[in-house]
Amino acid sequence: MKKIFYFLLALGLVGTDLASAQAPKQATWIYYPGDFEVWASNRMQNRRTDRGAFLPVLWKMDSHYVLVEFHRDFDVPATEELKLHVEGIYNVKIDGKAFVGYPKSITMPAGHHTLSLKVYCQDRVPAVFVQGKTVVTDASWLVTFEDKEWIDATGKVSDKSGTSYLNAGAWNFNNPLSPPSKYKLPTEPVKAVKTDKTAKSFFLDFGKETFGFVKLHGLKGKGMLHIYYGESKEEAMSAEHCETLDELTINEPAKKDSVMELSKAFRYVNVQFDGDVKVDDVSMLFEYAPLNERGSFKCSDNELNKIYDISKYTLHLATREFFIDGIKRDRWVWSGDAYQSYLMNYYSFFDSPTVSRTMLALRGKDPVTSHINTIMDYTFYWFLGIYDYYQYTGDKTFIKQFYPRMQSLMDYCLSRRDKDGLMVGLAGDWVFIDWADGLSKKGEVSFEQMLLCRSLETMALCAKENNNAEDAAKYGALAADLKTKIFSLYWNDQKHALVHSRVDGKQTDNVTRYSNMFGIFFNYFTEQQKQDVKQNVLLNDNIQKITTPYMRFYELEALCAMGEQGYVLKQMKDYWGGMLKLGATSFWEEYNPTKSGADVYAMYGRPFGKSLCHAWGASPIYLLGKYYIGVKPLSAGYSTYSIEPNLGGLQWMQGSVPTPNGNIDVYCSTTQIKVKGDVGTGTLRFSSKTTPKADNGTVKSVGNGVYELEIAKGTAYTVTYSGK
Amino acid sequence: MKKIFYFLLALGLVGTDLASAQAPKQATWIYYPGDFEVWASNRMQNRRTDRGAFLPVLWKMDSHYVLVEFHRDFDVPATEELKLHVEGIYNVKIDGKAFVGYPKSITMPAGHHTLSLKVYCQDRVPAVFVQGKTVVTDASWLVTFEDKEWIDATGKVSDKSGTSYLNAGAWNFNNPLSPPSKYKLPTEPVKAVKTDKTAKSFFLDFGKETFGFVKLHGLKGKGMLHIYYGESKEEAMSAEHCETLDELTINEPAKKDSVMELSKAFRYVNVQFDGDVKVDDVSMLFEYAPLNERGSFKCSDNELNKIYDISKYTLHLATREFFIDGIKRDRWVWSGDAYQSYLMNYYSFFDSPTVSRTMLALRGKDPVTSHINTIMDYTFYWFLGIYDYYQYTGDKTFIKQFYPRMQSLMDYCLSRRDKDGLMVGLAGDWVFIDWADGLSKKGEVSFEQMLLCRSLETMALCAKENNNAEDAAKYGALAADLKTKIFSLYWNDQKHALVHSRVDGKQTDNVTRYSNMFGIFFNYFTEQQKQDVKQNVLLNDNIQKITTPYMRFYELEALCAMGEQGYVLKQMKDYWGGMLKLGATSFWEEYNPTKSGADVYAMYGRPFGKSLCHAWGASPIYLLGKYYIGVKPLSAGYSTYSIEPNLGGLQWMQGSVPTPNGNIDVYCSTTQIKVKGDVGTGTLRFSSKTTPKADNGTVKSVGNGVYELEIAKGTAYTVTYSGK
Repeated sequence: MKKIFYFLLALGLVGTDLASAQAPKQATWIYYPGDFEVWASNRMQNRRTDRGAFLPVLWKMDSHYVLVEFHRDFDVPATEELKLHVEGIYNVKIDGKAFVGYPKSITMPAGHHTLSLKVYCQDRVPAVFVQGKTVVTDASWLVTFEDKEWIDATGKVSDKSGTSYLNAGAWNFNNPLSPPSKYKLPTEPVKAVKTDKTAKSFFLDFGKETFGFVKLHGLKGKGMLHIYYGESKEEAMSAEHCETLDELTINEPAKKDSVMELSKAFRYVNVQFDGDVKVDDVSMLFEYAPLNERGSFKCSDNELNKIYDISKYTLHLATREFFIDGIKRDRWVWSGDAYQSYLMNYYSFFDSPTVSRTMLALRGKDPVTSHINTIMDYTFYWFLGIYDYYQYTGDKTFIKQFYPRMQSLMDYCLSRRDKDGLMVGLAGDWVFIDWADGLSKKGEVSFEQMLLCRSLETMALCAKENNNAEDAAKYGALAADLKTKIFSLYWNDQKHALVHSRVDGKQTDNVTRYSNMFGIFFNYFTEQQKQDVKQNVLLNDNIQKITTPYMRFYELEALCAMGEQGYVLKQMKDYWGGMLKLGATSFWEEYNPTKSGADVYAMYGRPFGKSLCHAWGASPIYLLGKYYIGVKPLSAGYSTYSIEPNLGGLQWMQGSVPTPNGNIDVYCSTTQIKVKGDVGTGTLRFSSKTTPKADNGTVKSVGNGVYELEIAKGTAYTVTYSGK
Repeated sequence: MKKIFYFLLALGLVGTDLASAQAPKQATWIYYPGDFEVWASNRMQNRRTDRGAFLPVLWKMDSHYVLVEFHRDFDVPATEELKLHVEGIYNVKIDGKAFVGYPKSITMPAGHHTLSLKVYCQDRVPAVFVQGKTVVTDASWLVTFEDKEWIDATGKVSDKSGTSYLNAGAWNFNNPLSPPSKYKLPTEPVKAVKTDKTAKSFFLDFGKETFGFVKLHGLKGKGMLHIYYGESKEEAMSAEHCETLDELTINEPAKKDSVMELSKAFRYVNVQFDGDVKVDDVSMLFEYAPLNERGSFKCSDNELNKIYDISKYTLHLATREFFIDGIKRDRWVWSGDAYQSYLMNYYSFFDSPTVSRTMLALRGKDPVTSHINTIMDYTFYWFLGIYDYYQYTGDKTFIKQFYPRMQSLMDYCLSRRDKDGLMVGLAGDWVFIDWADGLSKKGEVSFEQMLLCRSLETMALCAKENNNAEDAAKYGALAADLKTKIFSLYWNDQKHALVHSRVDGKQTDNVTRYSNMFGIFFNYFTEQQKQDVKQNVLLNDNIQKITTPYMRFYELEALCAMGEQGYVLKQMKDYWGGMLKLGATSFWEEYNPTKSGADVYAMYGRPFGKSLCHAWGASPIYLLGKYYIGVKPLSAGYSTYSIEPNLGGLQWMQGSVPTPNGNIDVYCSTTQIKVKGDVGTGTLRFSSKTTPKADNGTVKSVGNGVYELEIAKGTAYTVTYSGK
């Protein structure tokens, strides 16, 4: 019987529906798309404390839709039982007829039927898990927050016209007993590498920056117990100034293990207690995002290898339910910080759900009442993030479902332009750009116009992908106009650069790196302008230097984009290597080589204000993957891509770059390049002093000593050449 | 010491602040204005069940802001202790400095200080109760959902520019242990007036329509128990077709009293059980809104007195946390239904908080994604409700705080006009008007344009009251243009009336009562048009008759506005008297005198679909107060008002009309009028065949046998005259 079935299957005579009817399909929890993200980010961001006081975000928090309708049509081969799991109170209907009460199980008859559930839930996201044999919940279900049942313009029972449906949101909540509201990151017990103990204290060193819940073993007695957390030893030792702490009133007649309620970032933990409190031991539960290490990098320079490894560890720690800024202090979802995490992620974990989850959390709901995180630039990075997300993942559904939220955010931006059509900081807007002394935010800052221009290009791209030609034309024209305006208003021929701003309708004298470096990798400059900007800005020490890894990211990217990998390699070793020399076990929010001692931990006027594990400190991941290994998508989801290895002075390097479907592996030395891609069609591009040879395919010369080789999916190529 | 204090107080040398420092001020729970209303209406409207299945609303439900900042400046005379009660997790700061943890009590030092709290709460509305001696929470606190702390356009610590604050929402939650989330209507135990009992059943008659929770006394045993509720005996007896029911699986080894979870509407209750289930007795907990009976009406006609009393009982039952449609079925907040309840309420309970609460629940939050309740006319009634609310209560704060929500709803409407600037039903819009057979909703219906026009007038009025001259001019011009358009497009000189609609750009032949009767009391017609409409529409039996009390409300109002109190009195006695003759103990959703038997209970194709206690059935309250007793405000909050008694054929009548500050009492017979007002300045206006005399003030003749007398606050007047 089985044999015949597979025989029919092989002949294509049995559809996959029938085939899959053999075993029950896998159901998953579904919800209104974007709502789990909003709800979970509220929860996460409200875990911040500042020396024991609750410190929530400073902007609007949105809510999930509390009343949601879910439905899907099914062709049911034979009567089946459906198990229902629901977060909230609900009704369930087959073909519009409701069951009494809140059934946990219903019978679905054979034939074509519509199954629908309507759920109300205020404290959690309304969510549904239906498990039958062929009838299951998944992202193919439709959902709405406004069903307008039986109502149309004539007042008659309607076809639900005017109701907009989206595909259900789903992640990997495949266990009916673990609904979205119970989602937690996993933990693992970890012991300190060094413990100093007295009768009334513990001082622990976990060996490196880490994150999790402190656990007190054998806690007993009456008294106060204080935990001072430190990313540095100095911080943990400073009861007065450490950024995070716990203060507990203990009253335990019998020995008990106790785990702190909130997870914290630390390397050192200082536990102090009084009264007759006793503690046997202190350890921690390491809390982490379960990511796959997909990208890799290794080379002939050991310091660079260490920079890469610490970068990846930094990004891993700062990747939680969402991409957050840093693990000690804010632990908020900041759009500008997250944007860089997305890019680093594409070259390391390639965890797309964390990208889309973060973007949805940042965007929240309509109406838009302020910029994302209240920061103008952070709104624009949100658009840029979508541009990249589509390019790297090819996820069309996201662009389709959330295009309306892109539109309303762009409407908000466009409505705030001044009489010259430029973005200027209005009341309540934070023009951030970077942490830099004396950086002017006055008037119309060129950097913000650049970001708006790129955001408009993103809108045009997404409109086009959604087959919305009208919007594509509209946004395309707005972008083109703005680009022209940027060059006419900000380009200064004497300075060979874009100036920083316009005040009272006049160009200022000030040249900063920001808009100039973005102009390079946005490809907004002519070749001549690029060279001008490189010499007069990027490599000009008279232009105010960048001290945050945040903007170093873009500065080094701009230099890489101009082929300065050798220079950048040295910069990386100086800057990130500098942090390593100070004992960093993760990369920092800010690093100023001129500072020393405990001084290096100060920021925001507080002795330990600086975050020592900050996502934006991990940019070497991105730079090494995109500009040394040299892999990047040329069309959505890596259907085409390029590989342009650049050793930047290294003897050899090898690495893997993840894609939505498998990896692209590259090895490159001065004499040999090996590549293999699991996906799409690649173009290997390299310079050679002699005529190169390949074991597969045909190397083409494209002039000036540059050669290309087409890389077919699944085939390994070895090229012998003469590089530098 | 005390004496001296009062002496200083009498001299005005001690301010009230110091005076009130003698006793602690009364604190009250505060929250973001409108948020308790949204949250509580979600909760209430999600109590609907349809034969045991959960039946939620068919439109978007909004949520409260989950993160809210509260603050206020205080001049504190001496150090005082503050007790804090908070719904949610929170921080508390004095002058920006946070306390550690979640203190229940803090010390407020003397001097000028800012007290602030920031609260996160997802499942309930963030709310705060602070009780000190002089420092207390009340509606003078400011709140925001978006504090933008320390951020301004220059990135520096800011004065919170760009953040919009409102005055806190507050009601009468003056008990720290009864936060808003615990709000419940009070209940009282009530016994049935008649009980038929068998071993396996109870059949109870509570004597009249009522509402509450059925209570089973001495419940014991194992088996099923069914409760069938009936507004009529027939309904309770129909296990198959009753609209509401409870189905319980009983497993009680010992005797226990059990109260149903959800309150229901009924006069009759049919309890059936099987197995070895035993029940000693069945009673109910009557659940009611604690309203004050402020308005009254009594007259020489006993049937009319009964109609008034039953109307008031009907309105009372349908007034719950909000004004709902009817108590049996939907129990939802429907804007068109609520609008009539507001008006009736002004002449009975004058419970302004229930009006504003209902309007806020209906409006919900931005963005506007559909008409209120999905019904176009219901959006417009919301605006009309504000117009009346301001006129009757004089509450400027409401208009100030919620003007932005008025604007965005109006923007939504205006954006949906067609090329001729008229409202037409688009996909998802329900053009309701009335339940009437064959009523056309096609094309541009004149009735909807009339309502939009009045809504624009409301916008202009509110803009003016908010000193927003620009908006006042804009909305005023839009209203004037539309009024002109209405008459040019819909007025038909042959038919002497407004026609029902335009289809494909052409006037239809159809004349209905709706826009014509609204035109009268909106005062949109010339005197000649009014007379034309009265003869050709209102008193014309060839024009489709109105069968719902809902539209009878406006029909009879229009006739009253034209002085047809005699005719309307007869209509009231026929129509509402007709329901009384059928045994009504509350007034119905619909009444058709041609139907009889159990047939009268059918509606929506269901044998007991009709609601027998429907707010819109209670309109005589409004008609008798406004058009017989004849009292109405002429300016906001009754600062000026008119009294125009009209006996309509009665021998005498007397009544009280409530105002924000006391009542206006009127007695009127054919020979004597007595009035006394606790508020403002009134104008008594009446006709007399002879020259009237007054014991106070001076009666002025205004021609045509009509006289006026100015009524000063607090003075009683008796006028002797010769009326009809």
